[in-house]
Amino acid sequence: MKIGILTSGGDCPGLNAVIRGAVLKGTRKYDIEFIGIRDGWRGLVDADFFPLERRDVKGLSKVGGTILGTSRTNPYEGDRGGAENIKKTLWGHKIDGVIAIGGEGTLAAANRLHNDGIPMIGVPKTIDNDLRATDYSFGFDTAVNIAQEAMDRLRTTGDSHQRCMVAEVMGRHVGWIALHSGMAAGAHIICIPEVPLTIDEIAERVTDAAERGRAPLVVVAEGFKLKGQDEAYSDKGLDAFNRPRLGGIGEVLAPLIEEMTGIETRSTVLGHIQRGGSPSGFDRVLATRLGLHAADAVVDGAWGQMVAMKGTEIERVDFAEALGELNGVPMHRYEEAAALFG
Amino acid sequence: MKIGILTSGGDCPGLNAVIRGAVLKGTRKYDIEFIGIRDGWRGLVDADFFPLERRDVKGLSKVGGTILGTSRTNPYEGDRGGAENIKKTLWGHKIDGVIAIGGEGTLAAANRLHNDGIPMIGVPKTIDNDLRATDYSFGFDTAVNIAQEAMDRLRTTGDSHQRCMVAEVMGRHVGWIALHSGMAAGAHIICIPEVPLTIDEIAERVTDAAERGRAPLVVVAEGFKLKGQDEAYSDKGLDAFNRPRLGGIGEVLAPLIEEMTGIETRSTVLGHIQRGGSPSGFDRVLATRLGLHAADAVVDGAWGQMVAMKGTEIERVDFAEALGELNGVPMHRYEEAAALFG
Amino acid sequence: MKIGILTSGGDCPGLNAVIRGAVLKGTRKYDIEFIGIRDGWRGLVDADFFPLERRDVKGLSKVGGTILGTSRTNPYEGDRGGAENIKKTLWGHKIDGVIAIGGEGTLAAANRLHNDGIPMIGVPKTIDNDLRATDYSFGFDTAVNIAQEAMDRLRTTGDSHQRCMVAEVMGRHVGWIALHSGMAAGAHIICIPEVPLTIDEIAERVTDAAERGRAPLVVVAEGFKLKGQDEAYSDKGLDAFNRPRLGGIGEVLAPLIEEMTGIETRSTVLGHIQRGGSPSGFDRVLATRLGLHAADAVVDGAWGQMVAMKGTEIERVDFAEALGELNGVPMHRYEEAAALFG
Amino acid sequence: MKIGILTSGGDCPGLNAVIRGAVLKGTRKYDIEFIGIRDGWRGLVDADFFPLERRDVKGLSKVGGTILGTSRTNPYEGDRGGAENIKKTLWGHKIDGVIAIGGEGTLAAANRLHNDGIPMIGVPKTIDNDLRATDYSFGFDTAVNIAQEAMDRLRTTGDSHQRCMVAEVMGRHVGWIALHSGMAAGAHIICIPEVPLTIDEIAERVTDAAERGRAPLVVVAEGFKLKGQDEAYSDKGLDAFNRPRLGGIGEVLAPLIEEMTGIETRSTVLGHIQRGGSPSGFDRVLATRLGLHAADAVVDGAWGQMVAMKGTEIERVDFAEALGELNGVPMHRYEEAAALFG
Repeated sequence: MKIGILTSGGDCPGLNAVIRGAVLKGTRKYDIEFIGIRDGWRGLVDADFFPLERRDVKGLSKVGGTILGTSRTNPYEGDRGGAENIKKTLWGHKIDGVIAIGGEGTLAAANRLHNDGIPMIGVPKTIDNDLRATDYSFGFDTAVNIAQEAMDRLRTTGDSHQRCMVAEVMGRHVGWIALHSGMAAGAHIICIPEVPLTIDEIAERVTDAAERGRAPLVVVAEGFKLKGQDEAYSDKGLDAFNRPRLGGIGEVLAPLIEEMTGIETRSTVLGHIQRGGSPSGFDRVLATRLGLHAADAVVDGAWGQMVAMKGTEIERVDFAEALGELNGVPMHRYEEAAALFG
Repeated sequence: MKIGILTSGGDCPGLNAVIRGAVLKGTRKYDIEFIGIRDGWRGLVDADFFPLERRDVKGLSKVGGTILGTSRTNPYEGDRGGAENIKKTLWGHKIDGVIAIGGEGTLAAANRLHNDGIPMIGVPKTIDNDLRATDYSFGFDTAVNIAQEAMDRLRTTGDSHQRCMVAEVMGRHVGWIALHSGMAAGAHIICIPEVPLTIDEIAERVTDAAERGRAPLVVVAEGFKLKGQDEAYSDKGLDAFNRPRLGGIGEVLAPLIEEMTGIETRSTVLGHIQRGGSPSGFDRVLATRLGLHAADAVVDGAWGQMVAMKGTEIERVDFAEALGELNGVPMHRYEEAAALFG
Repeated sequence: MKIGILTSGGDCPGLNAVIRGAVLKGTRKYDIEFIGIRDGWRGLVDADFFPLERRDVKGLSKVGGTILGTSRTNPYEGDRGGAENIKKTLWGHKIDGVIAIGGEGTLAAANRLHNDGIPMIGVPKTIDNDLRATDYSFGFDTAVNIAQEAMDRLRTTGDSHQRCMVAEVMGRHVGWIALHSGMAAGAHIICIPEVPLTIDEIAERVTDAAERGRAPLVVVAEGFKLKGQDEAYSDKGLDAFNRPRLGGIGEVLAPLIEEMTGIETRSTVLGHIQRGGSPSGFDRVLATRLGLHAADAVVDGAWGQMVAMKGTEIERVDFAEALGELNGVPMHRYEEAAALFG
Repeated sequence: MKIGILTSGGDCPGLNAVIRGAVLKGTRKYDIEFIGIRDGWRGLVDADFFPLERRDVKGLSKVGGTILGTSRTNPYEGDRGGAENIKKTLWGHKIDGVIAIGGEGTLAAANRLHNDGIPMIGVPKTIDNDLRATDYSFGFDTAVNIAQEAMDRLRTTGDSHQRCMVAEVMGRHVGWIALHSGMAAGAHIICIPEVPLTIDEIAERVTDAAERGRAPLVVVAEGFKLKGQDEAYSDKGLDAFNRPRLGGIGEVLAPLIEEMTGIETRSTVLGHIQRGGSPSGFDRVLATRLGLHAADAVVDGAWGQMVAMKGTEIERVDFAEALGELNGVPMHRYEEAAALFG
């Protein structure tokens, strides 16, 4: 049996651990021959393949990034794209199926290819933890730890200077990283895309923390929007609101908070460091297990399914389950956290 | 409402986060008055109480250990112990109930006190992750991360000297820390109390790794026992087996492995560093949530229950569920990991 | 003997360790009574004092920030400022002298106060390592470690996506943090204020690294300026150069590099996380030693001097030595590093 | 020009950074051809050589251990050892000289080979920081950071249980790691080989710390000996002293302290984790610079010399300077630290 394996979309700590888990179990227990596909769907379309052997995955569980490379190519685009071309490429190389490791876009493409007759197994990957089909996704825990550690550092600066610190974390559509890192670091307000807040609500929490002698910590997901941001704020006559802005939401909030509360406020964008580097223990174990179970799924012929974490176990779910609505922070989880600051 | 809170048994990263979560929610939302009980059951028996206010829990989510102190006292022992004495003490101080944070022994005592008429809420604490009632317990993730990081370090030494490294981790009765840290660090064999192995099986894995050019990494839980340890090994004529031994199982295995494989072998006992220091993000969030829900349980009068993690949610379960059989590593989880090395 | 102690200027890991070192030695060996001065010169001018006792410095060596608070006030400004007012305040509180911990501005003010008759001892503090009077200053090593760790993370992302990563670190006037963190992380080009480079020189190094299959890492100190930045680049017709820019130099370089090399380029500003959090071992030891020696200097009446690191020893130097020209990266040190990439 | 390079003795974080520094500068600036010598002197004697090219040192500055391997072989022993045999081997492979990276034993052997006509350059390596010829040696800073972090963890356990914690660190002959990590972690007593103490002196410091409400932290270098250990203690009638002991000095001290003070005492041996893993920023920079300067020394024909750190610069010193008396902790440095606890 000959199986291709690819990683697609943004990189994420744990990708290499998935690859290692699949290859170790696949080669040793099932005698599967693995083919590495370079740079996600791009390599599948271009037949950019190489033999992926046991020795190639040596020591990979702790290595960040992906040895396969990644890209954001769509396999249905381009001259050589589309299911028919890809089928010819795969059959030409005698490849029996493909393990695709990626986020919602990747899994949607894998689903379509599967429906078009190409045997696909999926492994969900999202640093934002926004896929409904899995309790947790690898990379998320590492990102929370990095964000939390950075916030621990920001707090000592805030305390020394009696400043408000704004930390912008990843999360374009969902607020999981902000919610968990903010809870872990003791944030005084957490701003997530699922729960729009007015600048007054935020300023109130900042003032309240400052009055208790704390240096306020505001954690904001990059996708957060102020309630009524586009209409109401011009009315307030806030200077900061009318300045030109090139940065993200952190850069929007910091001057607004400073102007409304009178407290010196600094913003830090954690950025790419959240998705790089060696995975946490949780992510190494989760990713390794997903890889192991992906190899099982291949030999079971469970095509059209992906492996996912449910409670403490790894299960199989249909691609469809992972698609559609994102797994946002539900209101009861936000309210649970808000009891700490709200 | 006036509620006592205590921590009992071995310390564990996240205890302070539980205390902070309960106090913040309890004081702000429910107007509960908290009483800190010093050094576990010892302080309950001795009425060693102090007011625990919001400002006392400031910044605690990241602080290891427990500000309440802890001990291994049994509340039913001693002149002032026993349910009747404790009742008098509590009613004398107008304390309406107690939140007890602890492991199996603590929860068993809390259950008995509850049955004897003292209102108790439990919060499960076990660095070993050995309680059936909760999917994961706080402290475990931090211990896995510390162990894994130490093993990453041991591996570079092993590689440079072509040595076999034996890492002994915590786990007197169950092998969860060994299983997860061993998977995370890429161990070549994981030895846990639930799965006795012969020294030949271990030596074979070590030799196999060395032959593939790897420096073998053996991870062993402190409670692991060799299969037939007490009978069979004297027959083998292994010198190392007959030496006097004061150390733990790592000290037993290292010279046996060296003698059987001819590979220089060193043992390291990770020891107390696994249970100290600042909690990981996962543990801070889990512990904080357990504290928040313990405050809810108090106002709901859910006496005789404990809060526990199920999937991604915090639920309530009866004390009884946490007691009895320990949550050992099930065979399918060991076999899953063994696919990486077995 | 009664001695005031203050911290002034930007916060820096190790400030608390200096305070602890001075207070422990001063109280136990010399029977000095310490007075904490809040928020730097501001507290001195406003007589914002409090008794600073042994128990107040407990466990402080590992705590980031400063328990004294800090500000950027000038002691010669305001109604209550100036040497005569401050003298009255100090004599009124029977304070015999002041230990001032701060950077060039603080030490210049301390020098002037000393010349105006106020007994002052200085402790040099600069996260940028830019004071001539000391071989290394505390906080610098911590900043380098944080920056390096962030770059290790950025590299895995760069490798996975075949991107050029630009990391902007602190250093408004000198490039020490960029030089050391860049050497430590294996940067392909290091851009510091002392050595202007053209965008062509930078792009060449980026292209060269990419051609060898590496994901280029560009480390840039915030104070770096492109050679001929303001004149020449408009001639190049680079679109990126003509865009409005609100961010720092990293935001300037990234689009220029992308446009010139055709390699996707991302910029990350490490920002405030570089100066917060628990100090490294090197900084804890250095800061503690400076504190111990500041107490010695007080009892020796070495007013007008500061304590400084020379080789492996702590010595005393005149304030004047710390002032004037900054300690920039000398050309031979830049060339030494450039051998790695130049 | 063709140069061999080897690492010898115990492994140490930074070895790979030295190799990378030498190879990058040597190949790019000087056109030196490098030959990797496997496992220290063993590989030199056995002609176990391989071409070491630029691509082989890619990304090595952050990798612990040594890609060359190491051993404790003596080049003057065995059938194929000795200067004349080694000369033949080197000339046979047209190797013009050797860079030897190692500790006192390695440098002594290199010195003898140099005197016997083999061109040698040395790079000092000692995790214990015990070589007189260099202000600091790489690996030491990493070890101090690891030890300090472990002690930070031990302290939270000590505080929770009101226990005395004994941490045994490396340092068979000198106490630098104990001194610096103990200062950094706020130890209540530091025990080093250079300063024998009686058990009464140690117990007094432990009791004093406990009386002030602290959990005592005792840091002990593995080479520490109690004053009068072998004679006097049998007189004291201490049970703990007469027990059989297989462990190190930490295992000796813990029961003695417990018996004399009545305070529960636990011992942890940090062991091999101190010398493994990714180097700190300080060590990466120092090791890289030593490698760069070793390449310079080769082209300058500075045979018989080693590169060393003096203040902030790298200089050359004769092998002889590194040999002879070890660089122990001088009394004034111990007394400086003792002001914190003595």
